[in-house]
Amino acid sequence: MPTPAYDDQNVFAKILRGELPSHKVYEDDKTLVIMDIMPRGDGHILVIPKNPSRNIFDIAEDDLNAVMATVQKMARIVITAFAADGTTIQQFSEPAGGQVVFHTHVHVIPRFEGVSLRPHTGDMADNDVLAAQAEKIREALS
Amino acid sequence: MPTPAYDDQNVFAKILRGELPSHKVYEDDKTLVIMDIMPRGDGHILVIPKNPSRNIFDIAEDDLNAVMATVQKMARIVITAFAADGTTIQQFSEPAGGQVVFHTHVHVIPRFEGVSLRPHTGDMADNDVLAAQAEKIREALS
Repeated sequence: MPTPAYDDQNVFAKILRGELPSHKVYEDDKTLVIMDIMPRGDGHILVIPKNPSRNIFDIAEDDLNAVMATVQKMARIVITAFAADGTTIQQFSEPAGGQVVFHTHVHVIPRFEGVSLRPHTGDMADNDVLAAQAEKIREALS
Repeated sequence: MPTPAYDDQNVFAKILRGELPSHKVYEDDKTLVIMDIMPRGDGHILVIPKNPSRNIFDIAEDDLNAVMATVQKMARIVITAFAADGTTIQQFSEPAGGQVVFHTHVHVIPRFEGVSLRPHTGDMADNDVLAAQAEKIREALS
């Protein structure tokens, strides 16, 4: 299975270029963190490398390391921001793997005792709820 | 939530010390890869750092980078070994996050068009099936 070429018209590329809005919670020179608009749990965020890559199959080592440093930072921060009890981290590559947007991204989902992940229904979260969660994470970071 | 201390009596620590058997598929100086004995898909493997850490909250940067380099290598290899169509990568931290064995590990699950992940039932896979899958991965690596 050769990895298809990167297509810069994907949603995350547009967000990185500022052509689409997002709830940004963190940014450094190599990565961006935004709220997932179809969250599987409260505070579900996405860590996105700024450099283009499609998924695990073609991401450069430097970008993967930068993504994982941010994943670790954000895992720790969501524990503080939401008094979470743990995290679930997921990365999907190619449609069979569960990937929907074809720019590499890693899901960081705060988890709470006794609360299951919500199914991936495609329902969008309330915008104000996402804005409030993003603010909580930014506060915990500061 | 402070991360509890690492306990070296966990199953993966015992496998790393050679006190318990496993189906090894790959090893380098920093990481070990074994078959998951309760697979959620055919060819489901685990990437384990050799240095002790409990999960995403306490793993050292070097170990996390080594784990992810091996994750990427194995994601590519399972595509070849099983003619898979994609991968699902998961990492669970703390019981609420889905973690059961408290030594950091990352799941790499080969995925196939139209095949859902099996539920985590706790059922063990057939030993011969796992041995054959491990051999397929070792062959693809060689």
